Amino acid sequence: MELSRKASIVGIGQTEFSKNSGRSELRLCTEAVTAALADAGISPHDVDGFVSFCMDNNTEGEVARALGMRDLTYFGRVDQGGGACGGTILQAAMAVATGAARTVVCWRAMNERSGARFGQPSAQLQVMPDPELTWMYVSQGLQSAASYMAVMMRRYMYETGATREDFGRIALAARKHAAINPHAWFHGQPISMEDYLASRPIAEPLCLLDCCQETDGGVAFVITSTQRARDLRQKPVLISAAAQGIRKGTNAMACFYRADISPRDEVRLVGDQLYAKSNLTSDDIDVAIIYDHFGPSVMPALEALGFCEYGEAKDFIRDGGIELGGHLPVNTHGGQVGEGYIHGMNGVLEAVRQVRGTAINQVETVNHVMVTGASGVPTSGAILSAL
Amino acid sequence: MELSRKASIVGIGQTEFSKNSGRSELRLCTEAVTAALADAGISPHDVDGFVSFCMDNNTEGEVARALGMRDLTYFGRVDQGGGACGGTILQAAMAVATGAARTVVCWRAMNERSGARFGQPSAQLQVMPDPELTWMYVSQGLQSAASYMAVMMRRYMYETGATREDFGRIALAARKHAAINPHAWFHGQPISMEDYLASRPIAEPLCLLDCCQETDGGVAFVITSTQRARDLRQKPVLISAAAQGIRKGTNAMACFYRADISPRDEVRLVGDQLYAKSNLTSDDIDVAIIYDHFGPSVMPALEALGFCEYGEAKDFIRDGGIELGGHLPVNTHGGQVGEGYIHGMNGVLEAVRQVRGTAINQVETVNHVMVTGASGVPTSGAILSAL
Repeated sequence: MELSRKASIVGIGQTEFSKNSGRSELRLCTEAVTAALADAGISPHDVDGFVSFCMDNNTEGEVARALGMRDLTYFGRVDQGGGACGGTILQAAMAVATGAARTVVCWRAMNERSGARFGQPSAQLQVMPDPELTWMYVSQGLQSAASYMAVMMRRYMYETGATREDFGRIALAARKHAAINPHAWFHGQPISMEDYLASRPIAEPLCLLDCCQETDGGVAFVITSTQRARDLRQKPVLISAAAQGIRKGTNAMACFYRADISPRDEVRLVGDQLYAKSNLTSDDIDVAIIYDHFGPSVMPALEALGFCEYGEAKDFIRDGGIELGGHLPVNTHGGQVGEGYIHGMNGVLEAVRQVRGTAINQVETVNHVMVTGASGVPTSGAILSAL
Repeated sequence: MELSRKASIVGIGQTEFSKNSGRSELRLCTEAVTAALADAGISPHDVDGFVSFCMDNNTEGEVARALGMRDLTYFGRVDQGGGACGGTILQAAMAVATGAARTVVCWRAMNERSGARFGQPSAQLQVMPDPELTWMYVSQGLQSAASYMAVMMRRYMYETGATREDFGRIALAARKHAAINPHAWFHGQPISMEDYLASRPIAEPLCLLDCCQETDGGVAFVITSTQRARDLRQKPVLISAAAQGIRKGTNAMACFYRADISPRDEVRLVGDQLYAKSNLTSDDIDVAIIYDHFGPSVMPALEALGFCEYGEAKDFIRDGGIELGGHLPVNTHGGQVGEGYIHGMNGVLEAVRQVRGTAINQVETVNHVMVTGASGVPTSGAILSAL
C-alpha cells in the first residue's frame, strides 16, 4: 500500500512561544489544538485520532474531555523527544490511510522553560531513559544535551575542517529569519558574526548562540485524507512522504557505539526513505526545515539529506546560501535557535506555511518542503508538498 | 485501505513470570524478543520496526543494539498502560500494511513486582499522569488501582444485581486454567468458592483473589505481512481486526465524568469496531482473552463485547460457561489473576497459541479469538484468526 500523498495537513495552530506561559501544559495543548481545528474548519466533534510524543505530559483522555470531543478510535505516541516530529506525521498518515481514524490531531505542548528545563544538567538526567546511558554520560562528565552534542560537533570540525565561523553562519541565518518573525522569541534581534564569536561557551565548541531556546508553548496540526482535504478551508499540504530511522548504533544523543560519531547516519536513513517514497530528490526541495537543537548540527544534517556531500556543508551555507533568497532557504521561521523550541513541531508548522504561501519569510514558488527531526537520536522527517 | 487480514502474528516469546526476575527490564525484553524471533524463524537482522508501551522503560536504540539489529524504519508507542495491548497490534499492522516497516516486534517487559509496584498506593500515584486525576483520586481517598476499580464495580453490583459469588466464578475459572498452566504463577493452585469468599478485602467489594498478579517478566510477538507469513515457520495467526477506543468521558481508571460509570463503553467502542472491520460477530468468537486487572471487570467487558446483554454476565458465566469446555472459554491461560500481569500482552500470546492449537488448555477448533486491553481506561483489542 502506498502512503505517499494519501494524507494531508489541513490545519495548524499554536500558542505564543515564551519563557513563562503562566498556564498549564494541558491549557497550552488545548489552545493549540483549538487553533489548528479552527484553521482547518473542523469541529472538535469530528476528531477521532491523536498522535503525540511520549514525552508529552498531556493524556489523551484529558485532552479529549477538555475539548468536548466524542469517541476516538486511534491514539499513538512516538518516543525519542526531538526525533519524533516526523514520526507523528507518519503515524497519523498511516492511521488515516488505513481507516483507523479519519481526522487525527498531532500535538506537542510543554512548559519547557518555566517547568522542567531540558537544558539543565539535572533535568536532562531525568529525561535520559536508560540507566546505561545515564551512567555513561555522567561518568564522562556529560550532563546536558549541549555536552553530548559538543562531542559530536568537535569531531565534525576535526573531520571536515568546519570552523566556528561556519557554525556562526547557521546562527546568523536563523536569527535573521527570526528577527522578521513576530512569533519568534528573537523577533527584532538579529546578530552579527562578532556577536556570535563573542558568545560565551556552553560546552565547547558550542556557545550560547548555538543553543535552541528553552520554550513554553504548544503546537498542533490536523491530518486527514487528501481526498477530504480538497474540500476543506485551507490549501491542502500533501504528505509526500514521512519516515523514521534508527541507524545501527544510534542512541539518545550519544551515538558513541558507532564507528564514526560525526556523520548523521540516522538522518541519512530518513532522507533516503523520504526521497524513495516520494519519488523526489534533494533538487526538488525548495525549503528545508532542519532540526536545530543546536545550530551547528544543521551542517551534518544537510549533508546526510543529500543537499551536499559530507564535509561540504561549510561551502553550501556560505554567502547566504541558506538564507531567504539563497539556493536553499533553511529554517525560515528562525529555527529553534531563533523562534522557539517545541521539539521540532513548530518547524512542521513553518513547513506547512511555506507550502501554503503564508510564511512571514515566504519563499517564492514552493512545491516541496523538507522537515526533519533531531539528529543524533532515533529520528524522522517528512516532505510536504503543494497539491 | 482495508487492514483486515493483511498482517499476521508469526512469532511469540516470553520469559518466566515471577515476583523477582533478578535481572534488568532490558534483559527481560531482549530475552522475550529473542524467543519470539526464534519462534518465527526470523533473524534480528530482519527486524525493522518496534512498537511498545509508553510505560515501557526500554528504549528502541538500546533494544536494537543489545540484539545486534540493523536499521529500523518504524518505532511507535501506545499510551494508557493496560489499554495499550491491542493498540500495539493495530500500530504494527498499520506499519506493515503501509510499508513503514516489514517486520515489527511488539514488546512489553517490566519488573512490576521487584521494581515499581503498580499495586502500591505510592507507586500508583507516580503512574497517574495527570495532576487533575491525581488530585481527584487523593482527595477521595483513592490511592491504588484497586480502589478506583472498586467504585466502578460497586456500582455495577448495584445496577445488575451481581454478587460476590458471581465475581468468585471469574476467579475460579482463571485459577482453574492457571492451575494447569506451568507458566502461570498459580500453577497447581486452584481455589474453591470458600477460598474466594474468605479472601481478605483489598478495596471492597474487591478482595485479594480479584487482583491480578504483580509480575516481573517480558513478552514479545512478531508481526509481518500475511503474504510473507505463509512462508514462515509457524501457522500464521491473522489479524482479522485491531482497534482502539476512547469513549467520551473515559479516563485512566476514573471514568467519573460519564453519566454511568458502570458499563464499559470504551470496550464496546472497541468491540463494535472489531466486528465491523472483521465482518465477524460475537457468535464467531471461539475463545476470549479478556483483560483482568481485576477479575470482576471481566463481567462488564463481556457485556460490552456483545457476548451477552448488560447485566446478564452473571448468567453467562454460571455453570462453568467461561471455563474450558464452556460455551465461551475465557482466559484459558489463567488470566492476569492467575498467570501473570504483563499489561495484557501475555494475553495476546495466549490468543496466538489458541489459534495455533498449541495452548496448554487448548479449545477444540479455534477459528477466531478475541483479545482485549484493560476496561475503564482508553483501550484496545483485536480478533486473531486462523488462516
